[in-house]
Amino acid sequence: MANKNVILGIDPGTRITGYGLIDSDSHPVDFGCIRPPPKLILADRYKIIFESLEALIERYQPIAIAVESQFVLKNVQSAIKLGMAKGMVLLAAARKSIPVYEFAPKKAKLAVVGHGGASKFQVQKMIQALLRLPNPPEPEDAADALALAICCAHHLRSPCTSPLKAC
Amino acid sequence: MANKNVILGIDPGTRITGYGLIDSDSHPVDFGCIRPPPKLILADRYKIIFESLEALIERYQPIAIAVESQFVLKNVQSAIKLGMAKGMVLLAAARKSIPVYEFAPKKAKLAVVGHGGASKFQVQKMIQALLRLPNPPEPEDAADALALAICCAHHLRSPCTSPLKAC
Repeated sequence: MANKNVILGIDPGTRITGYGLIDSDSHPVDFGCIRPPPKLILADRYKIIFESLEALIERYQPIAIAVESQFVLKNVQSAIKLGMAKGMVLLAAARKSIPVYEFAPKKAKLAVVGHGGASKFQVQKMIQALLRLPNPPEPEDAADALALAICCAHHLRSPCTSPLKAC
Repeated sequence: MANKNVILGIDPGTRITGYGLIDSDSHPVDFGCIRPPPKLILADRYKIIFESLEALIERYQPIAIAVESQFVLKNVQSAIKLGMAKGMVLLAAARKSIPVYEFAPKKAKLAVVGHGGASKFQVQKMIQALLRLPNPPEPEDAADALALAICCAHHLRSPCTSPLKAC
């Protein structure tokens, strides 16, 4: 099932990778998360993340992929693990020649809630309202991914926006 | 050209990914580095790293892949970029069901030079001697990758070594 002008937002993580897709009319297309079994060795978990992203791209054929540009992390080891998960996103995108856009978390919140300091719950409630969902999107990783997709859609629509930083 | 019991050491990096292969008799098989053109966007650089690793694995069919477990990095953004490059290694390995072993940098230096605080130059000189190379291996990323392969070979040979941490 290919959709026109679908944007895929991704919130990568080794435990949970959230994803959210919206179309050009800002209707929700799909959202959810990839949860590789935690008992698997890391390499096999990244393989599952990569192949699940490939399957999403194959199914929905997005015109753009949005990810976060900045992360708040406890230490270097957490940053490397996050980087490994984010690397799966960039590789899956590059293999299909889909541009990747990066947004600071504040920018994604600004696009959805109207201010950059919004709480996770405020983001979930506003996405529910904007996308007319029956419930706030769960888990929060999927909500964050939808926020990135909405933010990316705003920017791609705006003719006076300066070019986005593509990864 | 498939070699028996070849071990592939990799020193991942977004700018330069060093690789080094040795066989079960600790003879050098190949070494060098992957340098994606720096003018490319990040996603395309990781694609080149991933596909170059896939080609190395296809060519030499290693029984094990060795990478560093710890990295000294300036900041979170550097750690995420390093993680993305390391993610390419883990994915390429997982897609061919090749086990990945992680070693602390000190352990790799210990295996090659005899003490964990060796300089880059000492590592290069000792690898030249151990592998009977005409010159010290260049660049240092390739030398580091060969050191990881040598370290991994020592551990796989030793029956009394406790099981290694596989990624």
